[in-house]
Amino acid sequence: MAGCSEFDLIDRHLAGLGAERDDVLLGPGDDAAITQDGGRPLLMALDTLVEGVHFPADLPAYWVGYRALAVNLSDIAAMGGEPCWALLGLTLPAPDESWVAQFASGLGRLARASGVAVIGGDVTRGPLTVSLQITGRATGAPLRRDGAHAGDRVWLSGRPGEAAAGLAVWQQEGAREQARWQGLRQAFIAPRPRVALGQALVGVASAAIDLSDGLAADAGHIAARSGVALHLDPPRGRPSARLLRWAGEAEARRLQLGGGDDYELCFTAPREADVMVRAAARRARTPVRCIGEVHEGEGVWWGGEPILDRAAGYCHFVS
Amino acid sequence: MAGCSEFDLIDRHLAGLGAERDDVLLGPGDDAAITQDGGRPLLMALDTLVEGVHFPADLPAYWVGYRALAVNLSDIAAMGGEPCWALLGLTLPAPDESWVAQFASGLGRLARASGVAVIGGDVTRGPLTVSLQITGRATGAPLRRDGAHAGDRVWLSGRPGEAAAGLAVWQQEGAREQARWQGLRQAFIAPRPRVALGQALVGVASAAIDLSDGLAADAGHIAARSGVALHLDPPRGRPSARLLRWAGEAEARRLQLGGGDDYELCFTAPREADVMVRAAARRARTPVRCIGEVHEGEGVWWGGEPILDRAAGYCHFVS
Repeated sequence: MAGCSEFDLIDRHLAGLGAERDDVLLGPGDDAAITQDGGRPLLMALDTLVEGVHFPADLPAYWVGYRALAVNLSDIAAMGGEPCWALLGLTLPAPDESWVAQFASGLGRLARASGVAVIGGDVTRGPLTVSLQITGRATGAPLRRDGAHAGDRVWLSGRPGEAAAGLAVWQQEGAREQARWQGLRQAFIAPRPRVALGQALVGVASAAIDLSDGLAADAGHIAARSGVALHLDPPRGRPSARLLRWAGEAEARRLQLGGGDDYELCFTAPREADVMVRAAARRARTPVRCIGEVHEGEGVWWGGEPILDRAAGYCHFVS
Repeated sequence: MAGCSEFDLIDRHLAGLGAERDDVLLGPGDDAAITQDGGRPLLMALDTLVEGVHFPADLPAYWVGYRALAVNLSDIAAMGGEPCWALLGLTLPAPDESWVAQFASGLGRLARASGVAVIGGDVTRGPLTVSLQITGRATGAPLRRDGAHAGDRVWLSGRPGEAAAGLAVWQQEGAREQARWQGLRQAFIAPRPRVALGQALVGVASAAIDLSDGLAADAGHIAARSGVALHLDPPRGRPSARLLRWAGEAEARRLQLGGGDDYELCFTAPREADVMVRAAARRARTPVRCIGEVHEGEGVWWGGEPILDRAAGYCHFVS
């Protein structure tokens, strides 16, 4: 959370607010809170998307709706949970019915595909903002950020950096280039939360997080919460070929470490679990690769150099 | 919901979105959704407050925090539930630490007093907006909007209309008048969610709703969902003496029927339950009074006249 005043604010003033309750198994600071209500533990998260901050003003309503659920599904994925129920807080400048219909269509499609019921919410007037709260059920011991141990391996799904590149394509390129870099564009517009992978990793991974703020910052959360250092290996952590083609070597690296919104999973697992990790990934039909190792110490390292300070990831209050 | 396009939007496009799930006992359309997870049913609600729409821009941060939880507690109160866990989505124009500290103080005080743990959330940059999601547990069969029957009596807690008057005092009056009308001012600034009353009414009331949009509009929701008419009796529904003093007879009536943000409960109960209603109110130390009766038919009636069209209550998209 180095230099990220947004999180400092949360940590200092909003953590541990209110009553202490025995049925709260895990409070603020992970991808989701864990509560207990008789059955399997519940996983509860809330994410807010603000127009112009979390998505460009010209993003079609369909994808705003899709995205609002996707980022929340990703929190449940990072805990290895089964997503169940969502509540929607939608703030709109005007009652634009065709916008709402498109928004509902994108949200609804992903909700049905994920088995999530939208059970309620609140529509209000104001600057375009979407807050979505999701509740899932644990499918076993939830994956947390604080379980990594020295000797574990560090794993990564998908190709982080592509979403940030896709946003730049969306905002900067002409129609022909948009078509040419369609794959990158899609990585931004339609992130795929790794729900199946998260569930498959329950009982296998020692810690997990989803990449919303960039690989450096989010791997940093695992390091900080687990009290370890994550050493990433440049050759094994190579950006995707299309990202290298679009951005060049240096910029691709910067996007991969510091770009946000990929919603891939970064996770750790004991060395002995390599075969189980690969089997879980196959079961979830999700590409994963080992990109480093967990050591004693602190921070995130890239080819032996500390990187967290240089690429602190996406942070709303830091330019 | 007459003429209230905000709710039309919800109803038409956002109701029933996503998967159908057996563990959803009640979806959108009541004060909270009801889900089932092994233990007692869960009550889940989410409310958004936007600066300049739901609270004046000069409301101190302490009371913004208090209010964000209060309006959500009121949803749990209207279902007769026990509030448990909250998730906070806070959007801020800038990382103003003293503002956040005050906000946390107001929210935290009410959370501790209500036994609610703030278990997580999301702080983002953008126009000042607070979305809070609350989960409670049912304490018996939840109070719903759809249980009123012809022959029931209509009951009301507290003195609706005072909050709307208090907002006007806050915005319009000088310092001396602010002090003089301190009681009205407090009704707006620090609404008291009727959690104890809601719980005491479980098994006694046939339907309930909390007053966020005004007595006429909210009683109208009970009427619509229950398929009945609510006939309110002007002498028994008389506004409070201080509201009459501040506003005069006609304006007091308008504020009472059409003003929002009181977070009192309007509920119905069978005639035979009069003694139990009064006992519940005593137990909850909350003043209640019978203000009318449930008839066959539809709409809300005031002294024999239909009132819902004339005083459709607070509606964000209707001036």
